[in-house]
Amino acid sequence: MKRVVVLGSTGSVGRQTLDIVRAHPERFQVVGLSAGSNVDLLAQQIDEFEPQVFAIADEAAGDEFLARDRRLRSACAGLGATALCDVARVRADIVVNALLGYAGLEPTLAALEAGTDVALSNKETLVVAGALVRHAADATGARILPVDSEHSAILQCLRAGERREVRRLILTASGGPFRTHSREEMRRITRQEALRHPTWSMGAKITVDSATLMNKGLEVLEAHWLFDVEFDRIDILVHPESIVHSLVEFDDGSVIAQLGLPDMRLPIWYALHAPARPEASFATLDLAAVGRLHFESLDHERFPCVALAIGAGRRGGVYPAILNAANEVAVAAFLDERLRYLDIPDLIDTVLKEAGAPAPARLDHGAIRDADAWAREVATRHILQGCPTGDPPC
Amino acid sequence: MKRVVVLGSTGSVGRQTLDIVRAHPERFQVVGLSAGSNVDLLAQQIDEFEPQVFAIADEAAGDEFLARDRRLRSACAGLGATALCDVARVRADIVVNALLGYAGLEPTLAALEAGTDVALSNKETLVVAGALVRHAADATGARILPVDSEHSAILQCLRAGERREVRRLILTASGGPFRTHSREEMRRITRQEALRHPTWSMGAKITVDSATLMNKGLEVLEAHWLFDVEFDRIDILVHPESIVHSLVEFDDGSVIAQLGLPDMRLPIWYALHAPARPEASFATLDLAAVGRLHFESLDHERFPCVALAIGAGRRGGVYPAILNAANEVAVAAFLDERLRYLDIPDLIDTVLKEAGAPAPARLDHGAIRDADAWAREVATRHILQGCPTGDPPC
Repeated sequence: MKRVVVLGSTGSVGRQTLDIVRAHPERFQVVGLSAGSNVDLLAQQIDEFEPQVFAIADEAAGDEFLARDRRLRSACAGLGATALCDVARVRADIVVNALLGYAGLEPTLAALEAGTDVALSNKETLVVAGALVRHAADATGARILPVDSEHSAILQCLRAGERREVRRLILTASGGPFRTHSREEMRRITRQEALRHPTWSMGAKITVDSATLMNKGLEVLEAHWLFDVEFDRIDILVHPESIVHSLVEFDDGSVIAQLGLPDMRLPIWYALHAPARPEASFATLDLAAVGRLHFESLDHERFPCVALAIGAGRRGGVYPAILNAANEVAVAAFLDERLRYLDIPDLIDTVLKEAGAPAPARLDHGAIRDADAWAREVATRHILQGCPTGDPPC
Repeated sequence: MKRVVVLGSTGSVGRQTLDIVRAHPERFQVVGLSAGSNVDLLAQQIDEFEPQVFAIADEAAGDEFLARDRRLRSACAGLGATALCDVARVRADIVVNALLGYAGLEPTLAALEAGTDVALSNKETLVVAGALVRHAADATGARILPVDSEHSAILQCLRAGERREVRRLILTASGGPFRTHSREEMRRITRQEALRHPTWSMGAKITVDSATLMNKGLEVLEAHWLFDVEFDRIDILVHPESIVHSLVEFDDGSVIAQLGLPDMRLPIWYALHAPARPEASFATLDLAAVGRLHFESLDHERFPCVALAIGAGRRGGVYPAILNAANEVAVAAFLDERLRYLDIPDLIDTVLKEAGAPAPARLDHGAIRDADAWAREVATRHILQGCPTGDPPC
């Protein structure tokens, strides 16, 4: 019986994790849950899974929730960001971190420092603080198990050789809904269009990141920290069908790939059990039925977010935190229709350029928090002042 | 420094093995060679690689060769089939068995019994005598390392999980030159057409086997013995580009594939070093340049050889030996234009049906040799008597 904490249990990955737990009560016991503001769904989950503790990130929603249902108070670890860390520290076998954005970092560190394995869906954890997270994991021996199809694929493919024999990691990218759009067509992309992802059904923020391919850029940074591979040896391959989830090329020229239907439950299942592969009942890939798989190179000109992300990763220090914060602000503004699609990379680039100063030699929490806050402020200021790039006002 | 014996050194796989040795003199030392009848090429190879011993399978060609060049006599282990076994028993780290047909069995057993790993390109070894070969390997702990792209791929993919977690092996098949031929068009297939394989450049016998897909049927039997997987869990997937060399589906639904350019040196390199993956300089797969991969189901109606092979494998005992002998006779007759393309499976089926009697409970050399001889005789008789199926005379 595996004791599981699910942080972000009302989001897409959180709900799918609980679907798996529901289908396998003999395997799992939920010991902790956390939600953002969707307290109605959280209440249902608490009723069903009876966790020892839960937390609510959104304090206003949490206050209302606790006022409405007093009997839950004893299991409530608290409200706000700190409470998420308390839930992450509960005695468990694995913490599934399905939080969105920068908020995912501290709970990841809390779990790893407590020696608990983390099934990590939250990209920003490794993006903004890869060095800290790696250090925390190495100190206690806790594992970081990726919960996204690409890194789960890489983790699986790496088993076919030794780490020192790896020549290249090849992350596949669906290319998003605008894979075939010209730069000119991209000018007119609306919120609605950006939220229509061809293969994956996900939350709004990550769907926009998948459209701009910022998501893929962040995944390169993630892969760098997860697998200790330098940036020059991490490639991106556009593959619209999202069947080949990623590949590893070894020194002998052999390429190992992991394939499956685009179903997030597969990497969740693998993270919950790795390295074991117990029988699962998900629909199985039938390549003859799929018929064709396509592959093409990434066009960096139409998808500048990838190079922005990798550039920030190479510079290191707080640059990835600045990139991430600027992107979060830009995407939120785009979703609120306060920023145009093509202004997303331009805004990020402007903020990164404004950062200018050299990165601190040693990354610490304070530096990251400061960089995050600074970048949000600068990005927000640029949006309020109009277009960040000197183009005519939005 | 690895001491290597190459049996069948003048054939396609043998020559490619020696290409690798030539390019890496710091890694390999050739200690034994054998050829069939191409003694001119063998003489060059002996000059270049200076093996301790060699053997020539074709006695007439061998007699002439030794009469011509007396100084080679001291290194000659002998002529004929027995001499191949003597070469296989030389003190070596690995015996590359690139012999064609049934003649490959005894040298494989000789090497394994001597405790030497065998890099096995010869299909018939495992097809006709899987149980014996498995037993010989298990007795000394010597390994059988497949030298064909499909089984090498499976061996590599299996590293991504435990053996008990394997749900299916999926062998890919290019589909050969007649993948899209109707049964009617197949009636008119000529020797020249059958020898034009779309992706691999190989010897005549194996090229015809690839056209009829008998090759793939034999590979299913090989996979059964190499990986100890029952026939129900070995599938075939048609994949014309021969880029995905094979796949393994695990119990959790995850599918692991091995990919590479169609280059036989890749599986040879892997067999020579497995499980290590030293740096190789073969041209690297660029999936974006390949662009598309196609997959389709196997049509058993147009390619009946596959079911004939698997049927013989399921029946066990000497049936695979009968199948193999009948196929060798049929393909030789087709290459001599004494048999039509569509008569190949019909002849094999006729011989298998004539075998009738139950398989002996225990497989031994004598039973295999007898079955082989019997099947050759029956197949030859049918060819001499005209078409095996009661169709109008050829």
